[in-house]
Amino acid sequence: MSELRQDPLTGGWVIISPRRNKRPFDFVSETKEEEATECSFCEGHENETPPEILSLRKKGTRPNTPGWWIRVVPNKYPALQLRGKANVRKRGIYKEMEGVGAHEVIIETPEHKEDLFSLEDEHIRKVIEVYRDRIVKLTKIPYIKYVLVFKNQGREAGASLRHSHSQVIATPIIPRNIQEELEGAKRYYELNKRCIFCDIMAQELALRKRVILENEMWVAFTPYASRFPYEICLLPKEHTFIFQEMTDEELAHLSQILRDVIRAMNKALSNPPYNYFLHLPPLKKGSSRYYHFHLEIIPRLTKLAGFEWGTGFYINPVPPEEAAAKFCQG
Amino acid sequence: MSELRQDPLTGGWVIISPRRNKRPFDFVSETKEEEATECSFCEGHENETPPEILSLRKKGTRPNTPGWWIRVVPNKYPALQLRGKANVRKRGIYKEMEGVGAHEVIIETPEHKEDLFSLEDEHIRKVIEVYRDRIVKLTKIPYIKYVLVFKNQGREAGASLRHSHSQVIATPIIPRNIQEELEGAKRYYELNKRCIFCDIMAQELALRKRVILENEMWVAFTPYASRFPYEICLLPKEHTFIFQEMTDEELAHLSQILRDVIRAMNKALSNPPYNYFLHLPPLKKGSSRYYHFHLEIIPRLTKLAGFEWGTGFYINPVPPEEAAAKFCQG
Repeated sequence: MSELRQDPLTGGWVIISPRRNKRPFDFVSETKEEEATECSFCEGHENETPPEILSLRKKGTRPNTPGWWIRVVPNKYPALQLRGKANVRKRGIYKEMEGVGAHEVIIETPEHKEDLFSLEDEHIRKVIEVYRDRIVKLTKIPYIKYVLVFKNQGREAGASLRHSHSQVIATPIIPRNIQEELEGAKRYYELNKRCIFCDIMAQELALRKRVILENEMWVAFTPYASRFPYEICLLPKEHTFIFQEMTDEELAHLSQILRDVIRAMNKALSNPPYNYFLHLPPLKKGSSRYYHFHLEIIPRLTKLAGFEWGTGFYINPVPPEEAAAKFCQG
Repeated sequence: MSELRQDPLTGGWVIISPRRNKRPFDFVSETKEEEATECSFCEGHENETPPEILSLRKKGTRPNTPGWWIRVVPNKYPALQLRGKANVRKRGIYKEMEGVGAHEVIIETPEHKEDLFSLEDEHIRKVIEVYRDRIVKLTKIPYIKYVLVFKNQGREAGASLRHSHSQVIATPIIPRNIQEELEGAKRYYELNKRCIFCDIMAQELALRKRVILENEMWVAFTPYASRFPYEICLLPKEHTFIFQEMTDEELAHLSQILRDVIRAMNKALSNPPYNYFLHLPPLKKGSSRYYHFHLEIIPRLTKLAGFEWGTGFYINPVPPEEAAAKFCQG
């Protein structure tokens, strides 16, 4: 069972999760790529994962058997779990709580060697719809305060299994990065009576030095103060989009720009390891006036070192304007 | 020339540093260990670094020639540099400034294959004295607001050269991690009229579940909410220590506990890659009433992934109590 502990100085929470030590490949710097025959995410290995929560599958096939395209299962080595109580306990100067929440895996394809963004458009779109459906479901759990959908691609990006998958973690606390963005956005709104994301987008679209791609509903650009080389942000053009309420057509536009931008990145940087995640406003708060949801993509090309850990400064050796130009060359 | 850019949402600053792209081994995932004969930190290669700022050397030897034990030189690929102006410029919604500051390298030994903590005690102590001396000097530059001394050991910890060295970066802005710790410490002080670090230390010393080592002046423990497996914190027992004013005897106590704790870590974890850094209060502010300087050590055993980047949560698979027990077994 994992545990949440609060840093008494900064207020940040840490998940102490001893079971995750048992994950395959953790703490091992060099391992050979696992074979498809041993992969528990492959078709035919359905009994090697916890029972499925959801799947898109051929008519007439039963849950937890072959015949699926996309499968959602609980993480076998969960950082957080549904059982337990979301009560904060004091331990002298310290605070802790049980590691309650949810941790799910979205297996994006039955094929071991496929990547999400080399699949058919329809298939990619369905994965994005599954994101929405899981967010809608997890939001309904009373003690859940936040849901993060994310993808780790490649070992350097923290993926412990090669088979293409995304993950969802639902937390009983609003994460500090979200809290910080919310506070910044609120501060800006109170001062200017406008959404900071809308203003950033307007400046980027006027300047066009960092814009990579756009479609009817979305724009992709390299942020002005990118922390990482080739970092990308995807923003919906319309302020009032609510991710959970997006129509299938709106999701198709997200799916299209995400596919195109990842393909451009793979071409420009030779399939780099990367992470992406959705930043939504907290689920049960009226912050959508000043917060504007977005998706961040971080290629994992550099290592953080003592200076970054010690200060919180990031050192980015690639100016975002150069990064955008490189993506657009393709 | 590098540039500082502020994230308009969070207020965090990023260093955009195109020259650092030219560092050896950056963006290269696999390279063979460089040979001593090609290493510009080795004795006899003094002309391959920028001219030295300081050195401890044999009597009668000239600067930038052999005969030294410890050598301080400007970083050849600096993140920040002394020339330029520390003025913030506006670019529409964004803010930036020239990358002013300082970035120095402390070459800890002339021997290519030595590690700092396998050197003679006297030598290790001298390195710590050099830390103090560089902090004192850099503090005197008018626009410098903060000085961080840190060490990256091993490629996985971000070291681009194997030859043992530490670094010093002086910044024109108080880093966000420091700001956050200061605010937390101040909040606690105002509420309790006591230093939070002193209270943490008292609880740790009473409990003894996470204490690794102590001497007359210092205590080493694994923090209750450790973000990383086997993370270590060193705290001076006395609240009023000011690093810059520490006597050689006080520094000898730091040097001794740092040496012992790194040796214990190397034994328990087979010489892991690691970072350490000093957290001092900002140099020109009266925060020493509620802030308590310390040194943090982070072994680099796990990779951060999308969940950590997306939320700011850390997932630590090793409970700090287990980590402390493992260090104490040795």
